[in-house]
Amino acid sequence: MPVTGDQQLLKQLNRMALVRQVGAAPGLSRAALAEVLGLTKSTVSLLARELIDEGWLAESDLLTTGEVGRRATPLHLDGGRLALLGAEVGIDEARVVATDLLGRVVDSVVLPYQDPNDAPGCIALAGTGLIALARRLSRRNAAGGARRVLGIGIGLHGAVDEASGVLRHAPHLGWRNVDVGAQLAARLAGSPLAGLPRYMQNEANVAALGEFEFTPQSATDPLVYLSIGYGVGAGVIVSDRLLTGLRGFAGEVGHAILQVDGPTCSCGRRGCADALIGLGALLATVLDEERPSYAALETLVGRVEQGEAASCAAVDEAGRQLGVLLNNLWASFDPMAICIGGPALRLGDTFIAPARRVLADYAAAAVLAPPEIRTSEFGADAVAVGAAALARYRLTRPLDR
Amino acid sequence: MPVTGDQQLLKQLNRMALVRQVGAAPGLSRAALAEVLGLTKSTVSLLARELIDEGWLAESDLLTTGEVGRRATPLHLDGGRLALLGAEVGIDEARVVATDLLGRVVDSVVLPYQDPNDAPGCIALAGTGLIALARRLSRRNAAGGARRVLGIGIGLHGAVDEASGVLRHAPHLGWRNVDVGAQLAARLAGSPLAGLPRYMQNEANVAALGEFEFTPQSATDPLVYLSIGYGVGAGVIVSDRLLTGLRGFAGEVGHAILQVDGPTCSCGRRGCADALIGLGALLATVLDEERPSYAALETLVGRVEQGEAASCAAVDEAGRQLGVLLNNLWASFDPMAICIGGPALRLGDTFIAPARRVLADYAAAAVLAPPEIRTSEFGADAVAVGAAALARYRLTRPLDR
Repeated sequence: MPVTGDQQLLKQLNRMALVRQVGAAPGLSRAALAEVLGLTKSTVSLLARELIDEGWLAESDLLTTGEVGRRATPLHLDGGRLALLGAEVGIDEARVVATDLLGRVVDSVVLPYQDPNDAPGCIALAGTGLIALARRLSRRNAAGGARRVLGIGIGLHGAVDEASGVLRHAPHLGWRNVDVGAQLAARLAGSPLAGLPRYMQNEANVAALGEFEFTPQSATDPLVYLSIGYGVGAGVIVSDRLLTGLRGFAGEVGHAILQVDGPTCSCGRRGCADALIGLGALLATVLDEERPSYAALETLVGRVEQGEAASCAAVDEAGRQLGVLLNNLWASFDPMAICIGGPALRLGDTFIAPARRVLADYAAAAVLAPPEIRTSEFGADAVAVGAAALARYRLTRPLDR
Repeated sequence: MPVTGDQQLLKQLNRMALVRQVGAAPGLSRAALAEVLGLTKSTVSLLARELIDEGWLAESDLLTTGEVGRRATPLHLDGGRLALLGAEVGIDEARVVATDLLGRVVDSVVLPYQDPNDAPGCIALAGTGLIALARRLSRRNAAGGARRVLGIGIGLHGAVDEASGVLRHAPHLGWRNVDVGAQLAARLAGSPLAGLPRYMQNEANVAALGEFEFTPQSATDPLVYLSIGYGVGAGVIVSDRLLTGLRGFAGEVGHAILQVDGPTCSCGRRGCADALIGLGALLATVLDEERPSYAALETLVGRVEQGEAASCAAVDEAGRQLGVLLNNLWASFDPMAICIGGPALRLGDTFIAPARRVLADYAAAAVLAPPEIRTSEFGADAVAVGAAALARYRLTRPLDR
């Protein structure tokens, strides 16, 4: 329902529309914002004043434009007073970041798991990291660098039912139906974070939001973010919305079949993209590693950098399968760009170049221009920063579920 | 932008929200509608009065509820006074229907092409059909069955850029970059249809909207509609919106690769779903037909019904590939249901049963419940009726592009 009679909601919608507009086009004056948003200038002035008082927006120094007698005070997002917290409950560690409203990391902590099979322990560890960062932010606060936490995002390596807070299935962790929301609530109870809005989503979904909310290319829509770590998953944004699907499985393209009767996948099916492209499968094949780890990935990266033939051939084959998956994502979503991210980027062009070649060949055969293929700039923090982006995304879209 | 200061637009949004709500839940009173929509009862009464006067809504007979002294007048969509026109510019014919607001066909015409290579001729023929139906509706009008045409939808067998009215590529017709919008405007100029809103979309997209707007299961969201005719394409609806993608190619899953280095597809790639599942490929393989036709399909259906071994084996193999595609649509979109439609349904369970089996096997391997798979009820008119649904869909969502 786009419009209701609820004046409070209407006001909050307009406030957050103003925040989003200022984020998308920093430096506009109140008059220009009123024009773009279809609001009166006095409404914009009133809302801007509130948002400046609360720390969302800041005014630049008065600028005199070329026109005689006219002065405009440009608005931009305030990077100094508010914070977002983002946590990745990863495969072998929890990564937690605090960012400003523009997605710049202002603090972070990495906590290695004791035991990845102990889901409650891993989730509590992420909670510990969140509380630690909140404490550090508040100590800075006492020292003068005031920064209030607005909300918390969590990125999880599996399909997430955001409404219930349940992680349905994380194949590379072996977790099923873990009530992350309740466990995290229990860990945060009594801490300063207890009452704050919390949001959770699949790791590829949050990384997609990081790319969408926090980079200058935020006008890329539709955007597909393809996350390649031990598993393969996509986050898809269409018309300013994250696609989640009925049960949080949308974008789980790692479990689309690329090769009928191909190798067995961590999910139980055979021939999934995950089993042909994911690092878990690649490390198992090349290094005979049963449980993937960052150390194993570094070994593989070393062998590829030294040009070891069998490793390079395996990575090239995975790269060519990635090209097929890129074609299929193009056919399914017709995105403006596909952004590739995740630990597999460490394999460099040995991995990405064959994928680009395969996609280009398909595009040439069909006489069509393929979408732009780019790689993420956020590195190892992509999921944690994306989790912070999830918080900003939800807070600024009060009507979306 | 969810909210603007434009009072006219706000009113139109509320009017159309009311129409959609009455369509989704017929029989509610004004008070109940006010509650659901978050509007005041007097606003709902005012808007309902306008919409009744214009032919959108009708009142049922006064009903006395159980509560003493209370009377409620239920509202429903008026099936009697307005019409939508929908045209399918098909592979070997143009089909045009007039429906009421609820999607019930009130008139139709089928016009076989003289020459499918003559794109302007085929498009003009669809225009001729639209004008013929409009004339018949107006003659009835004179006889007392008043029915005003609200808008026109067009379904096309290829990727459509709706904003420019250009059909980008229709592989099974061999058409590229055909300016359908301008050609149709030229054909309708001077007719009573000249000034009416016109919308156009891919055939699978409009058929998806037909299923979404005009069936009692309209609460199915996300919905994937998989159209299997000479080619294969999907229409995807998520959160009440049709996904179109950057250039109208979203849902073109017929050109996702299911078999690397598989058979050459009409699009130029190899191993596409289209070349493994579509009737064009199946008829070429089994009957050695170069140009698919309804007559050839009837021949194949006859052979399958008689249990001819080679034909049944080919259809079974296509059905199993369809099962793989269903798995991949599930992984990509996590829909509530996938609805299969199009001429291939004529092949019956020889085609559909192996698809269901393959999907069930994947679901069992992954220990997950697959989406509901159902088949369309609209038969040969699915695209034309869907085109009428496109008109209702766009008219009742004034803010969507």
